Amino acid sequence: MQTVTLIPGDGIGPEISAAVVKIFDAAKAPIRWEERNVTAIKGPGGKWMIPPDAKESMDRSKIGLKGPLKTPIAAGHPSMNLLLRKTFDLYANVRPCVTIEGYKTPYTDVNLVTIRENTEGEYSGIEHVIVDGVVQSIKLITENASRRIAEYAFEYARNNQRSSVTAVHKANIMRMSDGLFLRKCREVAENYKDIKFTEMYLDTVCLNMVQDPTQFDVLVMPNLYGDILSDLCAGLIGGLGVTPSGNIGANGVAIFESVHGTAPDIAGMDLANPTALLLSAVMMLRHMGLHEFAHRIQTACFNTIRDKKVLTKDLGGSSKCSEFTAEICRRVQDLA
Amino acid sequence: MQTVTLIPGDGIGPEISAAVVKIFDAAKAPIRWEERNVTAIKGPGGKWMIPPDAKESMDRSKIGLKGPLKTPIAAGHPSMNLLLRKTFDLYANVRPCVTIEGYKTPYTDVNLVTIRENTEGEYSGIEHVIVDGVVQSIKLITENASRRIAEYAFEYARNNQRSSVTAVHKANIMRMSDGLFLRKCREVAENYKDIKFTEMYLDTVCLNMVQDPTQFDVLVMPNLYGDILSDLCAGLIGGLGVTPSGNIGANGVAIFESVHGTAPDIAGMDLANPTALLLSAVMMLRHMGLHEFAHRIQTACFNTIRDKKVLTKDLGGSSKCSEFTAEICRRVQDLA
Ligand SMILES: CC(C)[C@H](C(=O)O)[C@@H](O)C(=O)O
Ligand SMILES: CC(C)[C@H](C(=O)O)[C@@H](O)C(=O)O
Repeated sequence: MQTVTLIPGDGIGPEISAAVVKIFDAAKAPIRWEERNVTAIKGPGGKWMIPPDAKESMDRSKIGLKGPLKTPIAAGHPSMNLLLRKTFDLYANVRPCVTIEGYKTPYTDVNLVTIRENTEGEYSGIEHVIVDGVVQSIKLITENASRRIAEYAFEYARNNQRSSVTAVHKANIMRMSDGLFLRKCREVAENYKDIKFTEMYLDTVCLNMVQDPTQFDVLVMPNLYGDILSDLCAGLIGGLGVTPSGNIGANGVAIFESVHGTAPDIAGMDLANPTALLLSAVMMLRHMGLHEFAHRIQTACFNTIRDKKVLTKDLGGSSKCSEFTAEICRRVQDLA
Repeated sequence: MQTVTLIPGDGIGPEISAAVVKIFDAAKAPIRWEERNVTAIKGPGGKWMIPPDAKESMDRSKIGLKGPLKTPIAAGHPSMNLLLRKTFDLYANVRPCVTIEGYKTPYTDVNLVTIRENTEGEYSGIEHVIVDGVVQSIKLITENASRRIAEYAFEYARNNQRSSVTAVHKANIMRMSDGLFLRKCREVAENYKDIKFTEMYLDTVCLNMVQDPTQFDVLVMPNLYGDILSDLCAGLIGGLGVTPSGNIGANGVAIFESVHGTAPDIAGMDLANPTALLLSAVMMLRHMGLHEFAHRIQTACFNTIRDKKVLTKDLGGSSKCSEFTAEICRRVQDLA
């Protein structure tokens, strides 16, 4: 039994978390859940922080599974996503985007992974008014963070039987900052001769992506570009409702999460689609080395979608969250 | 007769420019071409600049049509595109992306326009090394440039029978800079009650764009976001080979251009596709108020593509540039 910190989140978060727990139970996955609420509180000195018991749980378990969070609209309240990234130094956001059989989109055979630097770049938060009507925002790129994300990307490629890494940049415009990022990618690439390395401008990637996404494999990039590309790629396979996401941190910490919203309009109505959180939990199992469980749960989920008999509304069906969940549980058990 | 400065450009530039000139002749468009070379030269003080005769022609004609340019690889040589934007204060890049009947892509009925602020933002060129291994790039947003582009977008929408403008931003992250941009958009929107105004995060736009581009109409955004989105949208309708582009400057100057590359591999072989430059020239005619000529040439071009009999290789045919051009000329005359 390994402990995982479960952060159900807000809106539909509790429902879809309960669904994942049920499916893990059906699979007899060796996970002990420790439920925590992470909504920021004001700590000593008035600084917003993750509640200590949530922080403590994560520090101990190292692994979190997180539903959608709403950021309270209080003056100065930080984005919960940003606060979590900061608190646990979650430097790599990883999103595998793989076409789901039976779920129709304009594309087939998408099979790529975006790896986003998650701690700096355009998200430095440093901004100034220079004079009235003139504002600057600072994009910060460091050698260390660039090397770290590049190394993560190549390790990921190697460990996941992927054959190429593309560094995405605008070093033709931001010669120094993106230039530094790119240089680190090139240097790291030298140590991974088994992985093909290419470089591509962000605009060119976007254009090629919508024309033929099958040409891409692993993509690595600075923060904002990753924000954009990861959502674009999610769109290619059906949107945030079916896209898993993982945040890898320093010291072995990792948080896996669905990246869709809290959907307050359908919260508590047993209508939510737990797929994104479930596939994030599957990523988590792989990260923990529990490959067999990961494979079984993923197969049960994909087969359920492929067969189109029991689907939630957003997936084109008319089943409830609980029915969709029960169907996956049944299949998980059948596969055992 | 109005004068237009023709900048044929490099690689396939001369061929596709010649094609456009032929088609304009066939249409009897009242244009007098003044051909100029804009490749930068070193001016007094060693500063790279547009050759004086090209600058003088543009200053006089106010309207340019430009093929692809290669940027010479000389130390410190600026990107020709950036130099032109700067020289003529081309503050708005406008790209209508409209599905072309008969040219198959994963999308149908795309009909949107991206309007990109073209002078500041991430393209300020201001970068510093803070300490070894730490670099910053400055994104500069000004009230004036933001207001100017917002006004352009709303005017464009009104003059082109478009019903909505969406401001694209990341003001949740870059609160001050994108916040300023957004505020100006909102203010300007107040003066255009006939046009619907919406705001959307860039990542959300990208996701929604690949899922259903038909929901968008006019989009306005800072420089880098425009660089990305305009290429993404070009991808939706078939790529840079069929996407027109216009750059609108202060003092009534405007340069219309194909945004694809110089394609040195096929240069001089009569294989190039002149569509992007031709459609840019059609935009130019509209800009000059020559709507009837614009309509006739565009129809001839679209019908040629739709009928699939005479197409260049990149469009899926086997005809030469000259044959494709002749076919459009024939149709232009038939439509007269
Ligand atoms: C919510 C927001 C701060 C966040 C971001 O911009 O990074 C989101 O878009 C994401 O990708 O997680
Ligand atoms: C060539 C390059 C400087 C340019 C840019 O990044 O703006 C190009 O991508 C464009 O969109 O015109």
